[in-house]
Amino acid sequence: MTDVDAVTAANTALYDAFETGDIDLMGALWLDDAGAAAPTCVHPGWAPVRGRGAVLRSWSMIMANTTYIQFVLTDVNVHVQGDVAVVTCAENMLTGMPETADDDPLLPGLAGGRAVATNVFRRTPGGWRLWVHHASPVLAPQPETG
Amino acid sequence: MTDVDAVTAANTALYDAFETGDIDLMGALWLDDAGAAAPTCVHPGWAPVRGRGAVLRSWSMIMANTTYIQFVLTDVNVHVQGDVAVVTCAENMLTGMPETADDDPLLPGLAGGRAVATNVFRRTPGGWRLWVHHASPVLAPQPETG
Repeated sequence: MTDVDAVTAANTALYDAFETGDIDLMGALWLDDAGAAAPTCVHPGWAPVRGRGAVLRSWSMIMANTTYIQFVLTDVNVHVQGDVAVVTCAENMLTGMPETADDDPLLPGLAGGRAVATNVFRRTPGGWRLWVHHASPVLAPQPETG
Repeated sequence: MTDVDAVTAANTALYDAFETGDIDLMGALWLDDAGAAAPTCVHPGWAPVRGRGAVLRSWSMIMANTTYIQFVLTDVNVHVQGDVAVVTCAENMLTGMPETADDDPLLPGLAGGRAVATNVFRRTPGGWRLWVHHASPVLAPQPETG
Protein backbone atom coordinates (compact mmCIF):
# COMPACT_ATOMS: atom_id res chain seq x y z
CA MET A 1 0.00 0.00 0.00
CA THR A 2 1.46 3.35 -0.98
CA ASP A 3 1.52 6.34 1.34
CA VAL A 4 -1.19 7.98 -0.73
CA ASP A 5 -3.39 4.88 -0.47
CA ALA A 6 -2.86 4.70 3.29
CA VAL A 7 -3.65 8.39 3.76
CA THR A 8 -6.73 8.10 1.54
CA ALA A 9 -7.94 5.18 3.66
CA ALA A 10 -7.38 7.13 6.89
CA ASN A 11 -9.24 10.10 5.40
CA THR A 12 -12.18 7.89 4.41
CA ALA A 13 -12.20 6.34 7.89
CA LEU A 14 -12.80 9.77 9.43
CA TYR A 15 -16.10 10.05 7.58
CA ASP A 16 -16.96 6.39 8.24
CA ALA A 17 -16.49 7.04 11.96
CA PHE A 18 -18.82 10.05 11.80
CA GLU A 19 -21.46 8.23 9.71
CA THR A 20 -21.54 5.25 12.07
CA GLY A 21 -21.15 7.26 15.28
CA ASP A 22 -18.13 5.13 16.15
CA ILE A 23 -16.19 7.12 18.75
CA ASP A 24 -13.65 4.29 19.17
CA LEU A 25 -12.75 4.46 15.49
CA MET A 26 -12.72 8.25 15.72
CA GLY A 27 -10.34 8.05 18.67
CA ALA A 28 -8.05 5.64 16.84
CA LEU A 29 -7.71 8.11 13.95
CA TRP A 30 -6.51 11.12 15.95
CA LEU A 31 -3.00 11.83 17.15
CA ASP A 32 -2.19 11.73 20.80
CA ASP A 33 -1.35 15.04 22.42
CA ALA A 34 2.31 15.83 21.92
CA GLY A 35 3.15 18.99 23.77
CA ALA A 36 2.29 22.10 21.82
CA ALA A 37 1.55 20.16 18.63
CA ALA A 38 -1.81 18.95 19.93
CA PRO A 39 -4.54 17.89 17.51
CA THR A 40 -6.75 20.71 16.29
CA CYS A 41 -10.28 20.42 14.89
CA VAL A 42 -12.39 23.12 13.28
CA HIS A 43 -15.99 22.03 12.76
CA PRO A 44 -17.98 24.09 10.22
CA GLY A 45 -18.64 27.51 11.72
CA TRP A 46 -16.75 26.73 14.92
CA ALA A 47 -13.67 28.17 16.52
CA PRO A 48 -10.80 25.66 16.79
CA VAL A 49 -11.02 22.86 19.33
CA ARG A 50 -7.53 21.95 20.54
CA GLY A 51 -6.22 18.87 22.30
CA ARG A 52 -7.18 15.22 21.87
CA GLY A 53 -9.62 15.14 24.78
CA ALA A 54 -11.52 18.24 23.71
CA VAL A 55 -11.55 17.13 20.06
CA LEU A 56 -13.04 13.74 20.87
CA ARG A 57 -15.60 15.28 23.22
CA SER A 58 -16.67 17.61 20.42
CA TRP A 59 -17.13 14.65 18.06
CA SER A 60 -19.11 12.71 20.68
CA MET A 61 -21.43 15.66 21.13
CA ILE A 62 -21.89 16.21 17.40
CA MET A 63 -22.50 12.52 16.73
CA ALA A 64 -24.99 12.32 19.60
CA ASN A 65 -26.92 15.16 17.96
CA THR A 66 -26.86 13.70 14.46
CA THR A 67 -29.69 11.35 13.64
CA TYR A 68 -28.38 10.47 10.19
CA ILE A 69 -25.52 11.63 8.04
CA GLN A 70 -23.95 10.28 4.90
CA PHE A 71 -20.91 11.66 3.10
CA VAL A 72 -19.90 11.53 -0.51
CA LEU A 73 -16.37 12.88 -0.85
CA THR A 74 -15.40 14.54 -4.10
CA ASP A 75 -12.39 16.48 -5.34
CA VAL A 76 -10.13 14.52 -2.98
CA ASN A 77 -6.51 15.66 -3.25
CA VAL A 78 -3.88 13.77 -1.26
CA HIS A 79 -0.26 14.90 -1.01
CA VAL A 80 2.48 13.40 1.10
CA GLN A 81 5.55 15.41 2.04
CA GLY A 82 7.85 13.49 4.34
CA ASP A 83 5.95 12.51 7.48
CA VAL A 84 3.06 14.91 6.82
CA ALA A 85 0.13 14.39 4.46
CA VAL A 86 -2.32 17.07 3.40
CA VAL A 87 -5.75 16.16 2.08
CA THR A 88 -8.28 18.61 0.71
CA CYS A 89 -11.73 17.40 -0.24
CA ALA A 90 -15.34 18.41 -0.67
CA GLU A 91 -17.77 16.88 1.83
CA ASN A 92 -21.14 16.37 0.18
CA MET A 93 -23.56 15.57 2.96
CA LEU A 94 -27.00 14.05 3.17
CA THR A 95 -28.40 14.57 6.65
CA GLY A 96 -31.57 13.54 8.42
CA MET A 97 -33.78 16.37 9.58
CA PRO A 98 -35.31 16.38 13.06
CA GLU A 99 -38.60 14.49 12.98
CA THR A 100 -41.92 16.12 13.73
CA ALA A 101 -45.26 14.56 14.59
CA ASP A 102 -46.43 15.12 11.02
CA ASP A 103 -43.58 13.21 9.45
CA ASP A 104 -44.28 10.13 7.44
CA PRO A 105 -42.00 7.59 9.13
CA LEU A 106 -41.30 5.97 5.77
CA LEU A 107 -40.14 9.25 4.24
CA PRO A 108 -37.94 10.97 6.77
CA GLY A 109 -36.85 14.47 5.88
CA LEU A 110 -33.42 14.66 4.31
CA ALA A 111 -31.30 17.68 3.56
CA GLY A 112 -28.19 18.14 1.48
CA GLY A 113 -25.19 20.26 2.30
CA ARG A 114 -21.67 20.95 1.18
CA ALA A 115 -18.53 21.71 3.11
CA VAL A 116 -14.85 21.68 2.28
CA ALA A 117 -12.17 20.14 4.45
CA THR A 118 -8.44 20.33 4.88
CA ASN A 119 -7.19 17.28 6.75
CA VAL A 120 -3.54 17.11 7.83
CA PHE A 121 -2.14 13.74 8.88
CA ARG A 122 1.13 12.74 10.51
CA ARG A 123 2.98 9.50 10.03
CA THR A 124 3.28 7.55 13.29
CA PRO A 125 4.53 4.04 14.09
CA GLY A 126 0.84 3.05 14.22
CA GLY A 127 -0.04 4.58 10.88
CA TRP A 128 -1.25 7.95 9.64
CA ARG A 129 -3.06 9.96 12.31
CA LEU A 130 -5.13 13.14 12.07
CA TRP A 131 -3.33 16.24 13.23
CA VAL A 132 -5.65 18.97 11.90
CA HIS A 133 -9.21 18.71 10.58
CA HIS A 134 -10.61 21.98 9.28
CA ALA A 135 -14.07 21.89 7.73
CA SER A 136 -16.01 24.93 6.59
CA PRO A 137 -19.38 25.53 5.02
CA VAL A 138 -19.63 26.46 1.36
CA LEU A 139 -22.01 29.37 1.59
CA ALA A 140 -22.55 30.57 -1.95
CA PRO A 141 -21.48 30.11 -5.53
CA GLN A 142 -18.10 31.69 -6.14
CA PRO A 143 -16.96 33.88 -8.97
CA GLU A 144 -15.03 32.01 -11.62
CA THR A 145 -11.31 32.34 -10.99
CA GLY A 146 -10.06 29.35 -12.96
CA MET B 1 16.12 32.71 12.90
CA THR B 2 14.47 29.46 13.90
CA ASP B 3 12.06 27.60 11.64
CA VAL B 4 9.18 28.66 13.87
CA ASP B 5 10.23 32.30 13.64
CA ALA B 6 10.53 32.09 9.86
CA VAL B 7 7.12 30.41 9.49
CA THR B 8 5.54 32.95 11.85
CA ALA B 9 6.97 35.76 9.73
CA ALA B 10 5.64 34.18 6.53
CA ASN B 11 2.24 33.76 8.16
CA THR B 12 2.18 37.40 9.23
CA ALA B 13 3.23 38.46 5.72
CA LEU B 14 0.09 36.82 4.29
CA TYR B 15 -2.09 39.19 6.29
CA ASP B 16 0.20 42.15 5.60
CA ALA B 17 -0.19 41.46 1.87
CA PHE B 18 -3.98 41.41 2.21
CA GLU B 19 -4.10 44.56 4.37
CA THR B 20 -1.93 46.53 1.96
CA GLY B 21 -3.40 45.04 -1.22
CA ASP B 22 0.11 44.02 -2.28
CA ILE B 23 -0.36 41.33 -4.93
CA ASP B 24 3.41 41.12 -5.51
CA LEU B 25 4.02 40.23 -1.87
CA MET B 26 1.06 37.84 -2.03
CA GLY B 27 2.56 36.17 -5.08
CA ALA B 28 5.95 35.83 -3.40
CA LEU B 29 4.35 33.97 -0.49
CA TRP B 30 2.66 31.21 -2.47
CA LEU B 31 4.23 28.04 -3.81
CA ASP B 32 4.65 27.55 -7.48
CA ASP B 33 2.50 24.88 -9.08
CA ALA B 34 4.18 21.51 -8.71
CA GLY B 35 2.15 18.90 -10.53
CA ALA B 36 -0.74 17.63 -8.47
CA ALA B 37 0.48 19.35 -5.29
CA ALA B 38 -0.72 22.74 -6.48
CA PRO B 39 -1.48 25.48 -3.96
CA THR B 40 -5.01 25.43 -2.59
CA CYS B 41 -6.90 28.34 -1.05
CA VAL B 42 -10.26 28.28 0.73
CA HIS B 43 -11.63 31.76 1.39
CA PRO B 44 -14.37 31.97 4.05
CA GLY B 45 -17.52 30.39 2.66
CA TRP B 46 -15.89 29.48 -0.65
CA ALA B 47 -15.16 26.20 -2.34
CA PRO B 48 -11.43 25.53 -2.78
CA VAL B 49 -9.48 27.50 -5.38
CA ARG B 50 -6.66 25.37 -6.79
CA GLY B 51 -3.52 26.30 -8.66
CA ARG B 52 -1.24 29.30 -8.27
CA GLY B 53 -2.82 31.33 -11.07
CA ALA B 54 -6.38 30.88 -9.84
CA VAL B 55 -5.37 31.49 -6.22
CA LEU B 56 -3.68 34.79 -7.03
CA ARG B 57 -6.59 35.89 -9.24
CA SER B 58 -8.94 35.21 -6.32
CA TRP B 59 -6.80 37.36 -4.03
CA SER B 60 -6.65 40.15 -6.59
CA MET B 61 -10.41 40.15 -6.87
CA ILE B 62 -10.95 40.09 -3.10
CA MET B 63 -8.40 42.85 -2.51
CA ALA B 64 -9.93 44.99 -5.26
CA ASN B 65 -13.28 44.70 -3.47
CA THR B 66 -11.94 45.46 0.00
CA THR B 67 -11.83 49.14 0.89
CA TYR B 68 -10.17 48.59 4.26
CA ILE B 69 -9.21 45.57 6.30
CA GLN B 70 -7.02 45.12 9.33
CA PHE B 71 -6.13 41.85 11.02
CA VAL B 72 -5.23 41.07 14.58
CA LEU B 73 -4.09 37.47 14.78
CA THR B 74 -4.62 35.59 18.03
CA ASP B 75 -4.21 32.01 19.19
CA VAL B 76 -1.39 31.52 16.68
CA ASN B 77 -0.02 27.96 16.80
CA VAL B 78 3.00 27.12 14.65
CA HIS B 79 4.36 23.59 14.26
CA VAL B 80 7.14 22.44 11.99
CA GLN B 81 7.42 18.81 10.97
CA GLY B 82 10.27 18.26 8.54
CA ASP B 83 9.70 20.41 5.46
CA VAL B 84 6.06 21.17 6.30
CA ALA B 85 4.76 23.72 8.77
CA VAL B 86 1.19 23.95 9.99
CA VAL B 87 -0.18 27.17 11.44
CA THR B 88 -3.61 27.59 12.98
CA CYS B 89 -4.76 31.02 14.07
CA ALA B 90 -7.77 33.20 14.68
CA GLU B 91 -8.21 36.10 12.26
CA ASN B 92 -9.82 39.02 14.05
CA MET B 93 -10.82 41.49 11.36
CA LEU B 94 -11.79 45.12 11.28
CA THR B 95 -13.24 45.99 7.88
CA GLY B 96 -14.49 49.12 6.23
CA MET B 97 -18.13 49.11 5.24
CA PRO B 98 -19.26 50.41 1.84
CA GLU B 99 -19.81 54.13 2.06
CA THR B 100 -23.16 55.75 1.47
CA ALA B 101 -24.06 59.37 0.80
CA ASP B 102 -25.09 59.81 4.42
CA ASP B 103 -21.76 58.71 5.83
CA ASP B 104 -19.72 61.13 7.82
CA PRO B 105 -16.38 61.04 5.99
CA LEU B 106 -14.58 61.43 9.31
CA LEU B 107 -16.32 58.41 10.80
CA PRO B 108 -16.35 55.69 8.18
CA GLY B 109 -18.35 52.62 9.06
CA LEU B 110 -16.32 49.77 10.44
CA ALA B 111 -17.32 46.22 11.17
CA GLY B 112 -15.64 43.45 13.12
CA GLY B 113 -15.46 39.81 12.20
CA ARG B 114 -13.77 36.61 13.18
CA ALA B 115 -12.51 33.73 11.13
CA VAL B 116 -10.16 30.85 11.78
CA ALA B 117 -7.40 29.76 9.46
CA THR B 118 -5.24 26.74 8.87
CA ASN B 119 -2.15 27.71 6.88
CA VAL B 120 0.19 24.98 5.63
CA PHE B 121 3.66 26.01 4.44
CA ARG B 122 6.38 24.10 2.64
CA ARG B 123 10.09 24.68 2.97
CA THR B 124 11.66 25.72 -0.34
CA PRO B 125 15.12 26.95 -1.28
CA GLY B 126 13.61 30.44 -1.26
CA GLY B 127 12.01 30.12 2.18
CA TRP B 128 8.70 28.93 3.52
CA ARG B 129 5.87 29.17 0.99
CA LEU B 130 2.11 28.79 1.39
CA TRP B 131 0.74 25.48 0.21
CA VAL B 132 -2.76 25.58 1.71
CA HIS B 133 -4.71 28.48 3.18
CA HIS B 134 -8.09 27.51 4.60
CA ALA B 135 -10.10 30.23 6.31
CA SER B 136 -13.62 29.83 7.62
CA PRO B 137 -16.12 32.05 9.34
CA VAL B 138 -16.82 31.58 13.04
CA LEU B 139 -20.59 31.65 13.00
CA ALA B 140 -21.69 31.24 16.57
CA PRO B 141 -20.50 30.59 20.10
CA GLN B 142 -19.63 26.94 20.58
CA PRO B 143 -20.50 24.64 23.41
CA GLU B 144 -17.73 24.22 25.92
CA THR B 145 -15.70 21.11 25.12
CA GLY B 146 -12.53 21.94 26.97
